[in-house]
Amino acid sequence: MNAPATGTGTIYGLGLGPGDPDLMSLRAHRLLGAARNVAYFRKAGRRGQARKIVDGLIHAEAAEWPLEYPVTTEIPVTDPRYNQLLAQFYEDGTARLVDLSRKGEDVVVLCEGDPFFYGSFMHLHARLQGVVPVEVIPAITGMSGAWTATGTPVTWGDDVLTVLMGTLPESELVRRMSDTDALVVMKIGRNFDKVRRALRQAGLYDRAWLIEYAQMPNQSVMPLAQAGDRVAPYFSIIVVHGQGRRP
Amino acid sequence: MNAPATGTGTIYGLGLGPGDPDLMSLRAHRLLGAARNVAYFRKAGRRGQARKIVDGLIHAEAAEWPLEYPVTTEIPVTDPRYNQLLAQFYEDGTARLVDLSRKGEDVVVLCEGDPFFYGSFMHLHARLQGVVPVEVIPAITGMSGAWTATGTPVTWGDDVLTVLMGTLPESELVRRMSDTDALVVMKIGRNFDKVRRALRQAGLYDRAWLIEYAQMPNQSVMPLAQAGDRVAPYFSIIVVHGQGRRP
Repeated sequence: MNAPATGTGTIYGLGLGPGDPDLMSLRAHRLLGAARNVAYFRKAGRRGQARKIVDGLIHAEAAEWPLEYPVTTEIPVTDPRYNQLLAQFYEDGTARLVDLSRKGEDVVVLCEGDPFFYGSFMHLHARLQGVVPVEVIPAITGMSGAWTATGTPVTWGDDVLTVLMGTLPESELVRRMSDTDALVVMKIGRNFDKVRRALRQAGLYDRAWLIEYAQMPNQSVMPLAQAGDRVAPYFSIIVVHGQGRRP
Repeated sequence: MNAPATGTGTIYGLGLGPGDPDLMSLRAHRLLGAARNVAYFRKAGRRGQARKIVDGLIHAEAAEWPLEYPVTTEIPVTDPRYNQLLAQFYEDGTARLVDLSRKGEDVVVLCEGDPFFYGSFMHLHARLQGVVPVEVIPAITGMSGAWTATGTPVTWGDDVLTVLMGTLPESELVRRMSDTDALVVMKIGRNFDKVRRALRQAGLYDRAWLIEYAQMPNQSVMPLAQAGDRVAPYFSIIVVHGQGRRP
């Protein structure tokens, strides 16, 4: 089905941006349309968010290579088995990509947001580098998509921006939230209550915005104080805008 | 020259990304190609970086509206006249855009990087909002362009990312650099020596990378320690990569 390939193929870490295909870069769009091998992460039994974003944009004859995360919800992050399972998962994915590359096939690996800003592709990249050719296509980050959705600039003048993961301990969140001008919190999901408590303690609760599914058809943007007992998805983002110098 | 317009035009804050036109979003590229009014910031007597990026991409009949920064180099930022000059500049620019909008003209305002992440367009946006229709097209930030250019991911797992402007006082730079996992420093230029001293004091000097003209034909990427007595341009970016969890 694929054209006969020669030499060594390139693995592309292809940043898709926050979720709207129209916000993909020209380069990403062109590579995607031409790709004959498309790999992406997903949870077992799910279609995968990255795959959904490119629906209708990939070539009819492209081979698809889903990389299915092992089920990890029952194992705490601190358990060594968690790390072992994930390491094995990335080893297996890497082996599959190296195999394709050595058969001369280019492979596009779909990455939500920007490939080098958190995210899963980096764990493949670290293993692929120096073994087969790898290229990374930067993209609009999820947080850019989120602050744009609020309709207000996030940083002005000399503002300090701090980006925190909701997975950090509460005391650490409070300390850092109390000492920044502008703030982005990612990886909310089951950390939502902890993050909200931390924002209250840092005095930022009333200035915080909750953005869910930024730049997607089901986007929701609201002051955090209006979120009530809403369950925030893992990929929601909290933004506190800076108040810096503005002539 | 322009088609007769009716109603009120929209002002688009059009994010161009880090500098490579191929990294522009599909939406930005489409709006740009269709625009009959293109505005952009530049220093008096210069062509302007944003305008250079879109060379060959704007419509042959588009009217161009350069917004020329007042000369401010002789006035310190702390002098009230600095703020007055800039405020007047943004007022004048806003008036010009409002006038075009009320004549029914759409205007694309070119923004390097992401319009809501530092940058000048925000000062127009704050004045335009609620007066005429304004839309913002997010883009790949200069810092994404920079860390992608280093070939290494910037943040892993629970890493904290701090974004600092080189314009901050040295002691403040040292304090914040000493307390983060990953670091981005922007607005280098004449702050270069101060930023380097701060990185040394924070123990990050040997891990820091200097990226000039990220994603442009004259891109340069080097360990900061190899920069010697190089003069870093204002738009260079320093990146210190996080070392977080990686299964």
